[in-house]
Amino acid sequence: MQHFASDNYAGICPEALQALIEANVGHAPAYGDDEWTSRVSDRLRELFATDCDVYFAFNGTAANSLALAALCQSYHSVICHEVAHVETDECGGPEFFSNGSKLLTAGGDNGKLTPESVLEVIERRNDIHYPKPKVVTLTQSTEVGTVYRPDEVAAIADMAHRHGLNVHMDGARFSNAVASLGVAPADITWRAGVQVLCFGGTKMGLPVGEAIVFFDRDLSEDFARRCKQAGQLASKMRFLSAPWLGILDNDTWVRHARNANAMARRLADGLAKIPGTALMFPVESNSVFVNLTPAMIEGLRQRGWRFYTFIGAGGARFMCAWDTTEESVDALLADLRALASS
Amino acid sequence: MQHFASDNYAGICPEALQALIEANVGHAPAYGDDEWTSRVSDRLRELFATDCDVYFAFNGTAANSLALAALCQSYHSVICHEVAHVETDECGGPEFFSNGSKLLTAGGDNGKLTPESVLEVIERRNDIHYPKPKVVTLTQSTEVGTVYRPDEVAAIADMAHRHGLNVHMDGARFSNAVASLGVAPADITWRAGVQVLCFGGTKMGLPVGEAIVFFDRDLSEDFARRCKQAGQLASKMRFLSAPWLGILDNDTWVRHARNANAMARRLADGLAKIPGTALMFPVESNSVFVNLTPAMIEGLRQRGWRFYTFIGAGGARFMCAWDTTEESVDALLADLRALASS
Amino acid sequence: MQHFASDNYAGICPEALQALIEANVGHAPAYGDDEWTSRVSDRLRELFATDCDVYFAFNGTAANSLALAALCQSYHSVICHEVAHVETDECGGPEFFSNGSKLLTAGGDNGKLTPESVLEVIERRNDIHYPKPKVVTLTQSTEVGTVYRPDEVAAIADMAHRHGLNVHMDGARFSNAVASLGVAPADITWRAGVQVLCFGGTKMGLPVGEAIVFFDRDLSEDFARRCKQAGQLASKMRFLSAPWLGILDNDTWVRHARNANAMARRLADGLAKIPGTALMFPVESNSVFVNLTPAMIEGLRQRGWRFYTFIGAGGARFMCAWDTTEESVDALLADLRALASS
Amino acid sequence: MQHFASDNYAGICPEALQALIEANVGHAPAYGDDEWTSRVSDRLRELFATDCDVYFAFNGTAANSLALAALCQSYHSVICHEVAHVETDECGGPEFFSNGSKLLTAGGDNGKLTPESVLEVIERRNDIHYPKPKVVTLTQSTEVGTVYRPDEVAAIADMAHRHGLNVHMDGARFSNAVASLGVAPADITWRAGVQVLCFGGTKMGLPVGEAIVFFDRDLSEDFARRCKQAGQLASKMRFLSAPWLGILDNDTWVRHARNANAMARRLADGLAKIPGTALMFPVESNSVFVNLTPAMIEGLRQRGWRFYTFIGAGGARFMCAWDTTEESVDALLADLRALASS
Repeated sequence: MQHFASDNYAGICPEALQALIEANVGHAPAYGDDEWTSRVSDRLRELFATDCDVYFAFNGTAANSLALAALCQSYHSVICHEVAHVETDECGGPEFFSNGSKLLTAGGDNGKLTPESVLEVIERRNDIHYPKPKVVTLTQSTEVGTVYRPDEVAAIADMAHRHGLNVHMDGARFSNAVASLGVAPADITWRAGVQVLCFGGTKMGLPVGEAIVFFDRDLSEDFARRCKQAGQLASKMRFLSAPWLGILDNDTWVRHARNANAMARRLADGLAKIPGTALMFPVESNSVFVNLTPAMIEGLRQRGWRFYTFIGAGGARFMCAWDTTEESVDALLADLRALASS
Repeated sequence: MQHFASDNYAGICPEALQALIEANVGHAPAYGDDEWTSRVSDRLRELFATDCDVYFAFNGTAANSLALAALCQSYHSVICHEVAHVETDECGGPEFFSNGSKLLTAGGDNGKLTPESVLEVIERRNDIHYPKPKVVTLTQSTEVGTVYRPDEVAAIADMAHRHGLNVHMDGARFSNAVASLGVAPADITWRAGVQVLCFGGTKMGLPVGEAIVFFDRDLSEDFARRCKQAGQLASKMRFLSAPWLGILDNDTWVRHARNANAMARRLADGLAKIPGTALMFPVESNSVFVNLTPAMIEGLRQRGWRFYTFIGAGGARFMCAWDTTEESVDALLADLRALASS
Repeated sequence: MQHFASDNYAGICPEALQALIEANVGHAPAYGDDEWTSRVSDRLRELFATDCDVYFAFNGTAANSLALAALCQSYHSVICHEVAHVETDECGGPEFFSNGSKLLTAGGDNGKLTPESVLEVIERRNDIHYPKPKVVTLTQSTEVGTVYRPDEVAAIADMAHRHGLNVHMDGARFSNAVASLGVAPADITWRAGVQVLCFGGTKMGLPVGEAIVFFDRDLSEDFARRCKQAGQLASKMRFLSAPWLGILDNDTWVRHARNANAMARRLADGLAKIPGTALMFPVESNSVFVNLTPAMIEGLRQRGWRFYTFIGAGGARFMCAWDTTEESVDALLADLRALASS
Repeated sequence: MQHFASDNYAGICPEALQALIEANVGHAPAYGDDEWTSRVSDRLRELFATDCDVYFAFNGTAANSLALAALCQSYHSVICHEVAHVETDECGGPEFFSNGSKLLTAGGDNGKLTPESVLEVIERRNDIHYPKPKVVTLTQSTEVGTVYRPDEVAAIADMAHRHGLNVHMDGARFSNAVASLGVAPADITWRAGVQVLCFGGTKMGLPVGEAIVFFDRDLSEDFARRCKQAGQLASKMRFLSAPWLGILDNDTWVRHARNANAMARRLADGLAKIPGTALMFPVESNSVFVNLTPAMIEGLRQRGWRFYTFIGAGGARFMCAWDTTEESVDALLADLRALASS
């Protein structure tokens, strides 16, 4: 039975697993000095059509926290959306890695920052009793499943740069945004002003691991040591890097993301016909947020479905993964229809 | 061609890979709430014959640093051997995770602490201008390939406990020590006074990951949150945990360690017959430290062998892995013999 | 000309200065091992009528941050009011000293937490992706000049303790609260459940320094080392401690606080008769928050008055100090009256 | 009775106290925005004959730790002498403020680094498993009372700069070095390549406080916020800064230092005539390290003298302060003579 609790409930996609197995041949230098890591880095430079610096970290908490720590000092602050993962779901990870950089939250409809909401935080204070904003972090696609268009990213990045801030993108679900927008990866990153991207691998179908891509290479000085000290340098790095080869080939990563997005679309379309449900956000990538009745939520749970709800509200989140099938979506919808009419 | 640079040059052992592949079935709860993680934890409790708390981290830097941070505060200190990995090869990782706990180094022959060398550090200072010793960390097997016998561990742990210190064991190569000593894992850990063990998985043949085993469960309060905040909680945890099942079955992990140890033994025995070489430490696990002539070192390098040497000295380190073959050892010896007679 | 920008614009009160001068005799042991520090600590134990542990820090940022860091770990969180100084004016100090403990803000009228607002934060989340609440911090008197009555402190502390949280009080203006409430210091601290108080000295008329008072002595283990490591152990400690003797004698500290409170009262009473002004919060200690017209604010500035205003609003803050005179208050009121009628 | 335990046993010198008292007039802006702080900063720029950036911290632990943290990142390392105060007596302060920068100790006779000893550490390792050296810190005068001549500072700084390291000077006893060498302050700081100096005020006769002087102003970006966050921004800053005016006038600081140095000289000269004593280091500033017999040490203690000894050895340290008198030195010598002949 497939679940809709998180896209990290899914396993390893066949292409990534095959690449991992193929990398398991004999001895290879450790700590990233192997051919697979070198090849993946080159592939990512090709993908982004620029000479970026590439590092690998084990998970998103670390990738984002390390990147943010590299973009500011402890007495600086990071502007993020009030529902950003770094603010709500990292147990203080960014503050830990940066030794105290404060996250300042900004608003914006549909989980998206705007130049205005960012500016409001930048201009809120300028005295030394308040941590100076030094970074803006965007989540692409956002926590609520929406996506920033290239011009939206650029407008925020322009605002940030005009005030001396660096721009970071949390791309745990970057693939879903690319698939949704149908743009070149460069168009929503460096060409739009993003200096560092955390490119999520796990949710794309890898067993473990994210790539940290510095488009602004001045910002990556000694970053390898930062990773090492923080427990993010894999000794058998090839098993972290090689799976990327499997999904970068033939645009597999985009194909998988397209499936996840399509399943979310299918779920949303089905929900639209079910009374008592109401979408909470536009469905632009692989997640569906919907208000359900308490009876529906309870009923789905009893039928064994796993998904997240929000305390004290009727909101439910359904995430689709690279391997989510039409059958699973339809089964979920069928149960919802049954609950709606009961 | 196999190398002797590090035991992490080796790949994934077949048993671990098989277990990983078998865990790749459908959807599973994330963040450790899956059946494989639960089963491995139980297996480790059986293996150690006690009701310990088990956590997983991605690598040794993190496992050791997180464990040490849990055993003291930033204004405390950690006593380690002067050649301990935490002191020499973690780029300040323990200091980073603990926010400043100082490592105080103690001496001891053959890379091993003694109760006396530990006591000397404990008693060195007791004023508030010096960080109070709160932890002793032992490396088993040691950085130079020796092993602590159960009574040696117990004597150090007793000394530590009498002075209010906690005892941690860095077991990056714990398997090699168990294989070498032929003891039950409990005998060189909790029965000898060790409160927390970092049990190395990577060097045993896993793709990635170490287990942190708290025998003293009072010390693990909220440790899961510590891991999460520090970027060490895997979302698809099953792929970190399942491979352990593969090597714990049928004592595979000990069998692999025995092979590595035997290859080191074979190499040491061969070296004994080669003029111009001198072992630097007793060979008790899977590493061989030997003084070679500059010509030998240069000659091996030219023949393509990769291994570590020590700046300004003739010392060379050769590590054997779970998959090191007799053929590889013999080929290395043959080259050394040729170089010795040239 | 006296100002109303902050109570730390005032200088050293005569009693503190006299005590400092009297302590400047000959040589004395450093780092707190002197007679003055010992005597002040005893005097504070008498004042609070309990056997508490006393430490000194240089300023409020450090005192509060060190105390909070002692009450939780980096992966825990601290509940504070949304206008608390630790949240709004410490440039990330609490996060820095604790290496990442997140501040979670709660609401409450008039700058005061309530058991309900605290409970809402405690119960918001209980998963490991969110830092576990471990401390509640109250500000007494609050940032907006209100005070918690003993029963209000007790109700919040009870709620905190029932959920396993520690209770800290930021007492930068503790004296003003004591003077306002007319209670024994014990009644709004340990008898009401407060475990640690940061007792502000600077705003009472000292040149520098705050006392950190642990009523729960189990929480102060090795706290002296925490202070030392964090740069908060004075070598010539007597000059930090002796001035306390000057103000603790004859309840001088309460007398000074009473003056500051009375001047705020006088200012508030005067404002009530001036059209175009509106008090923003009840005036219960030494600060007056009032809405003024832009013309009034501009006019006061032109007449040389220094005070804080809030960006984008008409709010102004006037702080009274131990030495604020009736003449100064009346002069300010006269200028306001003139501006109101112009 | 005067003691020789530490130069911080002495009180406030008259000139500093007078300046403090004179600054206690009416209200003044807080946090350094006052006239005294401004004037002292200008005076220090004059003293050093360059346009440096000046900040104030409460004590040496903080001043040095903050400065070092500004010169490197957590994964870098700081080279210091093996007896440097930052290594031996700060309870891990530098590691705490920097969030993990490791101190790497180098040798050198008489407590002084040399270009060679520094180079040895720089070249020891260059892999990412070892924290990259980024700062050299010199102590002037040194922990054992010797002083670096201008050419010695320059030689070390040149070596550091050639390898990309920054140069910091711990000047807790900078005045004693200046008095000893008879040089312009600029000659042993920026003209010799020092980029940041922590200029000790407390040991010169101030009640509290040190100045952090950035000669390389690029390194001080946002340093005020670093101080604020770390609890080192005084609200009533004038009482931290004004005393400097008292000692900078008329070269009072050098005069006081000269007295301390002369008293150490007098003590050393007297010791030379007492059998059973042996100086341990050249006496070049205000400290005397001498080997005494156990009976002498015990005898001095019984006579009430306070001084430091070194565990397990016969070494004793005698520090002279700005106010140490000939009578005190002679009384100490008389007791030593009596003990020598008994």
